[in-house]
Amino acid sequence: MSNPSLLILPGDGIGPEVMAEVRKIIDWFGDKRGVSFDVSEDLVGGCAYDKHGTPLHDDTMARAQEVDAVLLGAVGGPKYDKLDFSVKPERGLLRLRKEMDLYANLRPAQCFDALADFSSLKKDVVAGLDIMIIRELTSGVYFGEPRGIIKEGNERVGINTQRYTESEIARVARSAFEMARKRSNKVCSMEKANVMESGILWRDVVQEIHDAEYPDVELSHMYADAGAMQLTRWPKQFDVIVTDNLFGDLLSDLAAMLTGSLGMLPSASLGAPMANGRPKALYEPVHGSAPDIAGQGKANPIACILSFAMALRYSFDMGDEAARVETAVEKVLADGLRTADLLGEEGKSPVSTSEMGDAIVAAL
Amino acid sequence: MSNPSLLILPGDGIGPEVMAEVRKIIDWFGDKRGVSFDVSEDLVGGCAYDKHGTPLHDDTMARAQEVDAVLLGAVGGPKYDKLDFSVKPERGLLRLRKEMDLYANLRPAQCFDALADFSSLKKDVVAGLDIMIIRELTSGVYFGEPRGIIKEGNERVGINTQRYTESEIARVARSAFEMARKRSNKVCSMEKANVMESGILWRDVVQEIHDAEYPDVELSHMYADAGAMQLTRWPKQFDVIVTDNLFGDLLSDLAAMLTGSLGMLPSASLGAPMANGRPKALYEPVHGSAPDIAGQGKANPIACILSFAMALRYSFDMGDEAARVETAVEKVLADGLRTADLLGEEGKSPVSTSEMGDAIVAAL
Ligand SMILES: CC(C)[C@H](C(=O)O)[C@@H](O)C(=O)O
Ligand SMILES: CC(C)[C@H](C(=O)O)[C@@H](O)C(=O)O
Repeated sequence: MSNPSLLILPGDGIGPEVMAEVRKIIDWFGDKRGVSFDVSEDLVGGCAYDKHGTPLHDDTMARAQEVDAVLLGAVGGPKYDKLDFSVKPERGLLRLRKEMDLYANLRPAQCFDALADFSSLKKDVVAGLDIMIIRELTSGVYFGEPRGIIKEGNERVGINTQRYTESEIARVARSAFEMARKRSNKVCSMEKANVMESGILWRDVVQEIHDAEYPDVELSHMYADAGAMQLTRWPKQFDVIVTDNLFGDLLSDLAAMLTGSLGMLPSASLGAPMANGRPKALYEPVHGSAPDIAGQGKANPIACILSFAMALRYSFDMGDEAARVETAVEKVLADGLRTADLLGEEGKSPVSTSEMGDAIVAAL
Repeated sequence: MSNPSLLILPGDGIGPEVMAEVRKIIDWFGDKRGVSFDVSEDLVGGCAYDKHGTPLHDDTMARAQEVDAVLLGAVGGPKYDKLDFSVKPERGLLRLRKEMDLYANLRPAQCFDALADFSSLKKDVVAGLDIMIIRELTSGVYFGEPRGIIKEGNERVGINTQRYTESEIARVARSAFEMARKRSNKVCSMEKANVMESGILWRDVVQEIHDAEYPDVELSHMYADAGAMQLTRWPKQFDVIVTDNLFGDLLSDLAAMLTGSLGMLPSASLGAPMANGRPKALYEPVHGSAPDIAGQGKANPIACILSFAMALRYSFDMGDEAARVETAVEKVLADGLRTADLLGEEGKSPVSTSEMGDAIVAAL
């Protein structure tokens, strides 16, 4: 059997730096555990635009469709702010999500014991926090048509369309219920059914899938604005949250920030199973490209390393190996190692991106 | 000259209870300050549906258009959850906002010194917090057409439309810049211009209005997901935030929860000036109808009382009288009076809704 294949897309800003550390982990698995990957690398985002005039070349797209998993760093930067919407770095990422049909975006918001003090929230509110947000990723207002800026009389009008089909809602609801069964068996679905018809359909379909297929899972519904409040007030009330693309964008970032350690949080975006049984999959850290600190060795590689751990778990069925990486990360944190983003004003001295990567390899 | 007119719509749940306390304040102004209002009262929300089969009767709508200001309690409750979308309690509120053209929703998020400990955030993060969120309230996905649930093949499809015209964005941007000039002269505008064309137009128009009319105000732009993060991380970086109807719904609730005291927060929804120079205006607490505690004398009347204070300031040009009410509220809090929502687990005994109202009147 051939090695599992992995396409690495470091992207822009700190993407290449954090990905270099993931490479060390991948190499360690090849050397020490006999687990080798066929790794190829390509461009996405601003760097792809610089080379090809498009944030995602068709060849890269085709390659992403073929591999077992894609690992992405981050895209974007001020250099590309003035580009036309159609070739912005983000379009590369959105094209990957859409064409690979990665409908279930798994965003764990976990508070690491060693970092609980670092949150802006009180320690008792966030210590031990462990939420999984499942965000729909291929539909909604991100992709709905019609869209654009049109002229009406002598006014410009900006238009986007929120659009969800029954089956789009059903499949991501199933992802959430399956996930809940492996966790605390509790799903909270969030929408604005009091204001939006698409939210009514969302609520109805989630409830129907629940009643027909997952009656054993505890299901509740909450308006997304109340959800934002409750996440802030007492996040531990939640286990799995399922919500649409746009609400998921805000709520998962909010949940991430509760933990106080954005540089720590990975994500997985999963689609339907391929012929080999593995889901189409893309893994990426939750943090952005952080152009302000790019190239300075200040970036925290942990979120990207933990994204690779998610790949081990969800694409390669190597839950034990994933746990090995996660334990190594916990160990270096417990040992007191901190990149700059994990230090308060206390004036301790931070370790560099590569020192953090090396320490995690050593802890493996 | 005739007295200024005030239409009171207590609504559902705790609405009538908290409004009863506002009545005491209004009476005090009549008795002690010679400031009398022509007060009328009517139904909105579930109670209007119960009586008229619609959450807002046309006569009530007409009256709201005529008065100098509307003061609303809260709408909704589980009793009405199964009603058809078109007659849900919320539709009454949304109709008022739309037909009165109340495009600027002012949502202050202020942390009261006496309550800083009550937030889920660390005290240094929220103590002294004072943000003003200006949310667009008459357009966007709340009102855009087409909308509904349609059948495509044998699937249901839920559709809503985000739609903003240049002039809709321009007028609320002006509200934000005007507000900033009275505060710390700083506006942050939030959208998802990296994903939505309506967000691009939003960003462009806000920038254009700034450059042409308010170059003295400091303006920044932020993606709404980053905004949710930054509000959680370090909210004091913001002064005035301007954003659209849906993002504003989530972000203002999030900001409200930062303060730890939802029962404290008022809001004002303002439209264009009427013939008498006063803006069309509706004032309401940020909290909902809280059906679980309705009728038990547990509700906190402060948010509704402070909404009346906003009416004094924004509709009746009585800034000093507004400050008098606000100071009275601060005094009773400093004295240690707490309704049930403002008590932690410490087992102090709470005061009732009407005891709180009486204490505020006494402090005036
Ligand atoms: C970069 C951007 C297009 C993206 C999104 O809005 O989905 C990001 O915020 C995310 O959450 O992955
Ligand atoms: C009750 C509901 C329709 C309303 C909204 O979504 O605008 C509420 O959440 C608010 O923020 O005033």
